[in-house]
Amino acid sequence: MSVAKEFEAANANYVASFTKGDLQLPPQRKVAVVTCMDARLDPARALGLEEGDAHVIRNAGGRVSDALRSIIISQQLLGTREIIIIHHTNCGMLTFTDEVLRKKVRDELHQNVDHIAFLPFGDLEQSVRDDVKLIKESPLVLDVPVTGYVYEVETGSIVKIDAH
Amino acid sequence: MSVAKEFEAANANYVASFTKGDLQLPPQRKVAVVTCMDARLDPARALGLEEGDAHVIRNAGGRVSDALRSIIISQQLLGTREIIIIHHTNCGMLTFTDEVLRKKVRDELHQNVDHIAFLPFGDLEQSVRDDVKLIKESPLVLDVPVTGYVYEVETGSIVKIDAH
Repeated sequence: MSVAKEFEAANANYVASFTKGDLQLPPQRKVAVVTCMDARLDPARALGLEEGDAHVIRNAGGRVSDALRSIIISQQLLGTREIIIIHHTNCGMLTFTDEVLRKKVRDELHQNVDHIAFLPFGDLEQSVRDDVKLIKESPLVLDVPVTGYVYEVETGSIVKIDAH
Repeated sequence: MSVAKEFEAANANYVASFTKGDLQLPPQRKVAVVTCMDARLDPARALGLEEGDAHVIRNAGGRVSDALRSIIISQQLLGTREIIIIHHTNCGMLTFTDEVLRKKVRDELHQNVDHIAFLPFGDLEQSVRDDVKLIKESPLVLDVPVTGYVYEVETGSIVKIDAH
């Protein structure tokens, strides 16, 4: 069975007890969370989010340079006024370089992706500091509170990273 | 209280009952979900996802053109072999045009963002078909099952969108 069919079956259970049909479009808690696509991280459970609370933007690594379009829309059209950035331990982004992945794609897919920056990082805490700084200094982002964390996949805990 | 502080408090509860500390990095169900950042959509609850199951990539609209970096990493480095694309009813992307948002940013932030395609759409089902097609035809993406859905924020239901 494809995962799609499994999702359809699971969704039927969700629908059967669904009570959130009249939520508003703008996030009620006026916050945007930027985090990694990692399978082990469930932002809603880990942060106590209910449907309707927050924008959740997720990509490989939780990199803000790849989230700027979404952040602008979140702030300019949907009223969010706080940003939370969460990277995590044991992230796949710690395991490769642009050169390695570009070569793999060239060898296996016979495609040139030298134009894509895959945004890996070597220092987890620094990657959070870099992304907080990028957001705080971007002229395209409003001057709102920005807080960076590392999520520990081993413990479920978010650890705040100070700008220092 | 900032939302960050509220998240820290909620996270302490999550940590207190956390039992998922030894999950593997690659998604166990070998699937990547691409969907919108919308606050009303909780992919884990709506699709029956547990921690460790699936990559979840989220951006404004759930647009795949803005998810390609993440999809390549998901497939090439972390072994996912199925893609699910989910857009949704009452999406913010149905409410504006590039021209409107670019003018708003120019007027209010005094910045030129004519170089950013914000990826709004006028036809919800067509936006799903467009994104399924883009992924299926991309030479950078493996030939894997791709299924597109519309999530109904009014009912919690995912409705499959056929290629046409």
